[in-house]
Amino acid sequence: MAEEREEFINVCGKLKLEVLEMLRTKHQLPQESLDWVNDMVDYNCIGGKLNRGISVVHCTQAMAPGNVLTPEMKEKASILGWCIEWLQAFFLVADDIMDESILRRGQPCWYRKPNVKMIAINDAFLLEAFVFQIIKKHFRSEPFYVDLFETFHDVVFHTEIGQLLDLTSQPLDAEVDLDRFTVDRYRQIVINKTAYYTFYLSAACAMYLNGVVDEASHDLAKKLCVQIGEYFQIQDDFLDCYGDEKVIGKVGTDIQDNKCSWLVVQALDRATPEQKAILKENYGRNDPKAIAVVKQLYNDLDLATVYHRYEDETYKTLCEEIARVTIMPAEVFNLLVRKIFKRNK
Amino acid sequence: MAEEREEFINVCGKLKLEVLEMLRTKHQLPQESLDWVNDMVDYNCIGGKLNRGISVVHCTQAMAPGNVLTPEMKEKASILGWCIEWLQAFFLVADDIMDESILRRGQPCWYRKPNVKMIAINDAFLLEAFVFQIIKKHFRSEPFYVDLFETFHDVVFHTEIGQLLDLTSQPLDAEVDLDRFTVDRYRQIVINKTAYYTFYLSAACAMYLNGVVDEASHDLAKKLCVQIGEYFQIQDDFLDCYGDEKVIGKVGTDIQDNKCSWLVVQALDRATPEQKAILKENYGRNDPKAIAVVKQLYNDLDLATVYHRYEDETYKTLCEEIARVTIMPAEVFNLLVRKIFKRNK
Repeated sequence: MAEEREEFINVCGKLKLEVLEMLRTKHQLPQESLDWVNDMVDYNCIGGKLNRGISVVHCTQAMAPGNVLTPEMKEKASILGWCIEWLQAFFLVADDIMDESILRRGQPCWYRKPNVKMIAINDAFLLEAFVFQIIKKHFRSEPFYVDLFETFHDVVFHTEIGQLLDLTSQPLDAEVDLDRFTVDRYRQIVINKTAYYTFYLSAACAMYLNGVVDEASHDLAKKLCVQIGEYFQIQDDFLDCYGDEKVIGKVGTDIQDNKCSWLVVQALDRATPEQKAILKENYGRNDPKAIAVVKQLYNDLDLATVYHRYEDETYKTLCEEIARVTIMPAEVFNLLVRKIFKRNK
Repeated sequence: MAEEREEFINVCGKLKLEVLEMLRTKHQLPQESLDWVNDMVDYNCIGGKLNRGISVVHCTQAMAPGNVLTPEMKEKASILGWCIEWLQAFFLVADDIMDESILRRGQPCWYRKPNVKMIAINDAFLLEAFVFQIIKKHFRSEPFYVDLFETFHDVVFHTEIGQLLDLTSQPLDAEVDLDRFTVDRYRQIVINKTAYYTFYLSAACAMYLNGVVDEASHDLAKKLCVQIGEYFQIQDDFLDCYGDEKVIGKVGTDIQDNKCSWLVVQALDRATPEQKAILKENYGRNDPKAIAVVKQLYNDLDLATVYHRYEDETYKTLCEEIARVTIMPAEVFNLLVRKIFKRNK
């Protein structure tokens, strides 16, 4: 496992060198700009859990005939895995500015560094541009090249739409208003902002590498991955409040940050008018007493039980749906679900 | 001329409606998000000079057999013209945040609006994503589709590299240092940040629409457009200091903003050690006295004469180079040069 991770990380270093080499020779960047890009990629692309990237390797193997991954296929899967990781770095560098976040992966957010600040916006753009340059370099001669880059474009677009829905769910110029935190709005944010790039993109890359390019298979993969992604984000939201800080490695802040979390959406969906008033009074306030009031309300509404029931039902439904898949190798979806079922971090 | 402009502007409204329709039906965005996108596109894509966009129509006509533009070709050229304008809106929305600009096209920069702020970063991403969605919708069945989107990607990449070179020419954590303002660095910033998207992209779109896809022609177009673009930016820098405010419609601020302008680069290239010390002392300071000292130094070095000589020589050289072009219709380049020769705004 550690060896697999190390091997995967080596591919990132290789891609970074390719990008630097292109910037040095084709674009003739001076050394100080090359150093900047080198540091920026190291700072923002390494240090995460790498679940999304390594998933491409696992999914590609799960779909391969006899589950045998040739070295060539593994290399290609690793490259596409890193494309997803770099794409995520692009989103996170920008999201951290928009959310005014302080820390990311245990270190100051990139834009918080004194020599970076708003240059981080252009760095985010560059990370996205690198992804498409890598895809061009490594996959231009593949029959699925056009499908591949269109898929990356569509997934980026979904993620940006999700961010738009999220950012505009609490207008900056209005007072706190929980009316937009509905079950429908929650699902729409999560599917767009998280599910596409976290699950469908890994599956789609594995499908292309295995020659599965037909629209019906990709529509089916989208349908399943969107459900898996929603389940994943609901876990994330649950763990933010109910997870073990020692296991997760951070303290949740969704309540004080006024986040459109699954828990607040479920609470609003079940609350009496009196409870709604309490939520409105205390949600989104960075005050330990207000946070405790919201948590007590979550307990009164027994949201932990609601969550565990949701998790069991979702798992059962997903397994049934996956078992009915006939038009493509379905083990890839079982793999994705198993990776996250009953996770505690 | 006014009619042509009006006709061109109508195409933007049409594209905006197509994007909104896609977001409403395919992505099922709620009305408030659709309103947001509608306002954001209107605010940031309209109100500019539209030179780049309309150039695609003119270039396409200049390359067409007998200079006759069919309605279908005009429509396609207008759509690609707006793709360039929206791409520019993407750059400008983001650049204004990075530069902490106050006004853009006579109104507050988008990020300065109280209900927008850092959401502007995601809006910039969306504008870029819209461009690729528009290209996909309108040009997917064209034989030059892959070349077209790769060209847009490459041009975006050049622009971002130019921004990186520009932003890192004055490190945030170091004191003012004019050592990085060299003739070479200036050229590299300008070619990447401005020339590719302002000139080559218009020419390339016209070439694709007229079936010119071979690499040699595009390399030649790049070579010429990069020179035209450098000339264009040098004019811009000259007019920032020596232009007529009433004609240009704004007051130049390059000196106090510590910009890597052609004038300061030429001054440094010609200055005695004493004059360099004066520049170092006064450049990049928002103080009328310091600005006056820099302007006096520009006059002492007779930079206006240097500029006019540069302009005449560049025009002559460009015309000669264009006259030697045989592998493709060259009138398109004369058109681009004529559009800017001796401009005063």
